[in-house]
Amino acid sequence: MSALPEPPYYAVIFTSQRTPVDQGYGQMADRMVELAAAQPGYLGMESSRGDDGLGITVSYWRSADDIAAWRRHAEHKVARDTGRSDWYQHYTLRVARVERAYGWQRSAGAQDPQA
Amino acid sequence: MSALPEPPYYAVIFTSQRTPVDQGYGQMADRMVELAAAQPGYLGMESSRGDDGLGITVSYWRSADDIAAWRRHAEHKVARDTGRSDWYQHYTLRVARVERAYGWQRSAGAQDPQA
Repeated sequence: MSALPEPPYYAVIFTSQRTPVDQGYGQMADRMVELAAAQPGYLGMESSRGDDGLGITVSYWRSADDIAAWRRHAEHKVARDTGRSDWYQHYTLRVARVERAYGWQRSAGAQDPQA
Repeated sequence: MSALPEPPYYAVIFTSQRTPVDQGYGQMADRMVELAAAQPGYLGMESSRGDDGLGITVSYWRSADDIAAWRRHAEHKVARDTGRSDWYQHYTLRVARVERAYGWQRSAGAQDPQA
């Protein structure tokens, strides 16, 4: 999981349904993780996909401008275009401003961290 | 995937790592989906969990007050407590205000919906 910087910051929530087409998908996904992590304002990323092909990737960014700059990255654009031609059946993308955040881990004990 | 209401609205991004303990987890998860959908201000929910046990659930709400009310729901509180005692190794929770949102589906053609 991603680190917990102090809010406010931004989240890009990308929810997608995969097609059965796998041609190069894993390689592209790994490359986008690597490339995103090298961009200005990148704070972290979390990703999961279930057996039903529905996946959620949330990336975290310092500002909306950082998100816009990442969107303009040429290699990212090619990946998105291939996503629409080959890999995704449908997707939604939301940009949201994180206002509050907290975490819990087992070693802290079972009490509510926000009680 | 969840519908796309007009922003602004709120997202709760819950990222969690499961323990191997399965006792009642699926039943609780189904019940929480059902119960959340019946709360005032509920707009939708998306959830995925991969084979590595990392899961992301994003629920969408009309306002921060609706999220606070759902948090106070007694049955939801019991589920969270059991999550900490049994089901989760660690988790993070973020509350974010959705500012922009769009979707794409294959039937619309491969062009960039935001170009």
